[in-house]
Order: sequence, then structure tokens, then C-alpha cells
Amino acid sequence: MKIPIVQNILSANDQVAAENRAAFKMERILAVNLMASPGAGKTSLILATCSRLPADLRPGVIEGDLASSIDAETVAAHGIPVVQINTGGNCHLDAPMIRAALPSLPLPEIDLLFIENVGNLVCPAEWDLGAGRAIVVASTPEGHDKPYKYPGMFARADAIVLNKADLLQVFDFDLAYFRRGIEMVNSGVPLFVVSCRSGDGLDAWVKWLVGNAA
Amino acid sequence: MKIPIVQNILSANDQVAAENRAAFKMERILAVNLMASPGAGKTSLILATCSRLPADLRPGVIEGDLASSIDAETVAAHGIPVVQINTGGNCHLDAPMIRAALPSLPLPEIDLLFIENVGNLVCPAEWDLGAGRAIVVASTPEGHDKPYKYPGMFARADAIVLNKADLLQVFDFDLAYFRRGIEMVNSGVPLFVVSCRSGDGLDAWVKWLVGNAA
Repeated sequence: MKIPIVQNILSANDQVAAENRAAFKMERILAVNLMASPGAGKTSLILATCSRLPADLRPGVIEGDLASSIDAETVAAHGIPVVQINTGGNCHLDAPMIRAALPSLPLPEIDLLFIENVGNLVCPAEWDLGAGRAIVVASTPEGHDKPYKYPGMFARADAIVLNKADLLQVFDFDLAYFRRGIEMVNSGVPLFVVSCRSGDGLDAWVKWLVGNAA
Repeated sequence: MKIPIVQNILSANDQVAAENRAAFKMERILAVNLMASPGAGKTSLILATCSRLPADLRPGVIEGDLASSIDAETVAAHGIPVVQINTGGNCHLDAPMIRAALPSLPLPEIDLLFIENVGNLVCPAEWDLGAGRAIVVASTPEGHDKPYKYPGMFARADAIVLNKADLLQVFDFDLAYFRRGIEMVNSGVPLFVVSCRSGDGLDAWVKWLVGNAA
């Protein structure tokens, strides 16, 4: 008797993530999963990025929060298509949540879809949403030791954005130490040092992102 | 036949939390579970608090991190008994981790035990460690909307400390809006607005803590 061997079983989440990935490919959308601590500036980065995109790269946004629609209202006020997911206490977005949100967006009119994950530097890294790129947004007030303390999140990033760089001095932020921590867990990953407030550094980040969407 | 009804089943975690609580009571220790986003300043608050404690209130610290012993080394450099828990990727401390750490501390020489949880504004709130008080440390760079976005964590706090208050203006932090958000989820909870850097506001916080340890 031959014993059947079943391989490559996807979890329920990963199965839906694969479907999301296929949907994004069909719609020619680059989906970007933005992950960060609470208050690192994910929404600010989305808005600052959208204002610098070429006209033929039309943005859309999925906002993930435990509760409230504060961020979605901010995004909507800028005329960007947005849908809010309230996880109801769940510490991360998952692929079925994204699938459920997609029908609320005008996908044929979106080229670049920002998915703002729940503010959490741990759990979101474990959940594939079907996005094409994973971005970690760090910020200077959090301190330069975060790659050492939260290696899993930094290890999974396709790029890292360090926000609030106008306050490097205020927080005695040791950029070389931060870089070394990143190199330890994710050698060669692009790091963009930006300030959404002053605009410094955003051009290089947007250029990288636009290149990835091409 | 009488059908047996079993009530008040504790989860494995809550069972161990109850044992921890009993151990703290026997040793006359007030254990304080400090929860916050990454980089809010939990370690800074512990050190600033310890330097202001009366001599008869001897501190000890349990440090929780996914990885690294950065915070424990900082605390040990100040001559405070400390043990580091590395969760190995787990997004929160749990009661068995605390139980496993206790034998590494000189409990008879500790009156006030700070438990610094993993930096995470979501998951730690769900896990009883057996501590006597739960404290949420927020910080001005995170923004004034956090009680609205992370209500579960703020709802469970016995006191809230807002750190980095020297930067209220820099971050356009609306303290009244922040207070209203807290009142919505946890009416009457004490809020201490402090700066670990300047020392402002710490006396009121330490006074409250010492009163709770009595």
C-alpha cells in the first residue's frame, strides 16, 4: 500500500495571502505592508509619500487599527481611496482581513496600495498578507537599539525607513549603532533616513518605492 | 446520575499567575507590570524611579525582551538586582516566565519589583503575570491618539505615565485630547505626566507608587 504524502500545505492565512497576491498581480498593484511601533509615523509616511508620487502611480490605503478610524479619516481628507479595518483587539492584520477589505477599494484605479498594519513591532511580522513588499518604519524617539531587541521584524523587511530624523540629536540617536543592528539581522537591506516633518530624505525613499512598483 | 459541574477553571497561565501573586504576598513584594510601546522609556522610568525611592523600599527588576540583554545590563550597572527574560520571539511575558525568573532574584531583599514587559501596546495586556499593579507608559512622540487606538491596554491600567513630557510642544501633543481618550476607557485612573530626562513630574508618580507599596 502506498502511503499518500501531502506536501506544501498552506495555513489558512497563507492560502488567503496567496489569493491576495494573485489579485494584486492581476490588478497590477504593488501592495506594501507597513509595520512599525505605535506612533512611529506610518500614516505620516503614507501621506508624505503620496504627495511625492508621479501622477501615473495612483495610491490607495488600507488602515489597520484595533479600534477607531482616526487614520482613515486623515487619509480620506487628502482625497486618497482608503478603507479602515478594525481588528477588534487583534494585534496584527491577517490575510482574510485584507481580502475582506479589497471590495471596498476601487482597485482598477490603484497602482500602489499601502497597508498600514497595527502598531506593533512583533506580531505583524509573522503574518503574510500577500503584499509585495514589507517595510519597517522605525523612528528616532524609540531609540537606536530596536533592531537588537526586535530582530524578527527587522529581519523580514524589504526596506527600513527611519522617521523623525530631524530629532536624531534630541534623542542622542546613534545611527551607526542602529545600522550595525540592522546589518546583523538583514544584511544589505536598504535603509532610508527621513523626516516626514521636514521632508528630508523622502526623495530617495520614494525613488526606491517607485522603482519597485515599475 | 448527578452531572459534575466544574467551575472557575483557571487557564494554565492564570494558575501560575495566582501562584506568583501568592509568592509576592508571602515575600511582601509589590510587583509592578510595566507595559508600553517599544522605546516609550520603561527602563528610563525604572531607573529614575529607583533613584527617588525611600531607602526602606528596595527595588528589583525583571527585564522582558524578545532578544538581547541591553536593558538588564543598564539596570545592573546601577547596582539594582535584575534578571533578563528573553522570550525568544514571544510578543509578551507570561506568568510561567515570571515564575522561572524569580529564583534568580534575592526576593527577601526586594520590596518593589518592576517587571518590564516586552515593548508592545497590545498583547501584554491580555496576560496576567500575578503582579499587583499594571502600569502603562506612554510617551509624547507616539502621539495623543493612542488611548483611542489601543483602548484595551489603557483600560487595564492602574495608573498611566506619560513620559517625554519635555517634548509636548515638539510633537504638538494635545494633552486634553489624550486625557479624554483615557477617561473614555478607564475613568478616574491616575495619569502622571513626567519627563525622565528633566525629572519633571516624577515626584508625584513616585509618591503614588510608594503609597501603593505600603
